[in-house]
Amino acid sequence: MITIEPVEGLPEIREGDDLAALIAERAELRDGDVLVIAQKAVSKAEGRVVRLAEIEPSAEAGELAAGEDPRRLEVILRESRRLVRTRPPLVIAETRHGFVCASAGVDSSNGPEPDTVVLLPEDPDASAARLRERLRELTGAEIGVIVSDSFGRPWRQGTTDVAIGLAGVQPLVDLTGERDPAGYELHATVIALADELASAAELVLGKTRGIPAAVIRGVDAAGEGTAQDLVMPRERDLFRGEEPGP
Amino acid sequence: MITIEPVEGLPEIREGDDLAALIAERAELRDGDVLVIAQKAVSKAEGRVVRLAEIEPSAEAGELAAGEDPRRLEVILRESRRLVRTRPPLVIAETRHGFVCASAGVDSSNGPEPDTVVLLPEDPDASAARLRERLRELTGAEIGVIVSDSFGRPWRQGTTDVAIGLAGVQPLVDLTGERDPAGYELHATVIALADELASAAELVLGKTRGIPAAVIRGVDAAGEGTAQDLVMPRERDLFRGEEPGP
Repeated sequence: MITIEPVEGLPEIREGDDLAALIAERAELRDGDVLVIAQKAVSKAEGRVVRLAEIEPSAEAGELAAGEDPRRLEVILRESRRLVRTRPPLVIAETRHGFVCASAGVDSSNGPEPDTVVLLPEDPDASAARLRERLRELTGAEIGVIVSDSFGRPWRQGTTDVAIGLAGVQPLVDLTGERDPAGYELHATVIALADELASAAELVLGKTRGIPAAVIRGVDAAGEGTAQDLVMPRERDLFRGEEPGP
Repeated sequence: MITIEPVEGLPEIREGDDLAALIAERAELRDGDVLVIAQKAVSKAEGRVVRLAEIEPSAEAGELAAGEDPRRLEVILRESRRLVRTRPPLVIAETRHGFVCASAGVDSSNGPEPDTVVLLPEDPDASAARLRERLRELTGAEIGVIVSDSFGRPWRQGTTDVAIGLAGVQPLVDLTGERDPAGYELHATVIALADELASAAELVLGKTRGIPAAVIRGVDAAGEGTAQDLVMPRERDLFRGEEPGP
């Protein structure tokens, strides 16, 4: 059996907070558990917050804004390595980490104060590794940590949560070469375990209830890797989505 | 707390099996539970199995096969409404239901015998509704049912499970207009609840262990809708992926 427990009672996270300590006080962690924490809490603790008052929008940001706040679009452009699709003010972009998502992961909701936006962590795998290390220090438990975010998908409505950073968790489970019960060899069956864990945790994370973390118990997920392993390599990507050329 | 329990000890499913009865004998179902069942078990019970020996491949199937079995490609073409991307023998297609996935959902593994492939159910929402009705009859429990399948995603490695059919489950949770703890109104925040439930269940479904069903308890997911609500409407789809024109 798998259980998923919300970490309840966390305060509003501020820059410099010891997130691991706040969690360790509120969750009983055991070896093998997976802690899933929403990117926004991590980003806020790391001070990845931008005041729009300090942003000077470019002409490109103005065009993409389509009447919305061009400063927000300017931040999105700065966080983007490449624009994948645009339908102003909607921008699907590849972030500097290689993730393809709406607004390059820049989020206007749940900011620490009005007129701020929250960026993705600089290096979400490193964030996960630091949290894991600090939680081991505080609790002695050998756990996995996933930093999650809500991404839209082509062709399907709504967001599902995915892993944008991880530590001590196997990102992918490769069944290639294993056999199903009928003896048929499974070809190219790779399961995005860390993304499924992130989605499972989202079932208890409340965007409106202020619950940014959950503990999953009972999944054999311990392993090595990074969230970069979940990014499709360029040469295998059938959906690079070039912008219309010049 | 959420719990996810595998339904263990199910036999290999055959055409005509009373899937609901087989599950009811092995799982204790309560009001509010969500039963997630792998598409393949449903398809096999419904006889959605094709013998490749009976398939005459077209020239197009031969080209797409790139040396693999052209009869399998022929079945994929027949199940497709539209090809989205091809890199022979890999085909990403839109199924007649509107789902975009590899091989139009046609699966060669876990077939009931060698040289058979398994198709998606004709109408997975109807399959879910029938299972739900029959389980209510057998157990008295008012549950939700999701028929799940493993889909790949653009830009990300590995598959996650999604809902291709459902009954008694809210497919999407729309938070638009609700406020986060900071009082910021959430714009365009729609969560694909049914897909997250499918992914959560996959954590206990064993492709190699022959466990095709799981029971999720503790999620407030009861509601109306169909898996068609999870399909992005054509006019909002930024990734229609037209094939190269004539």
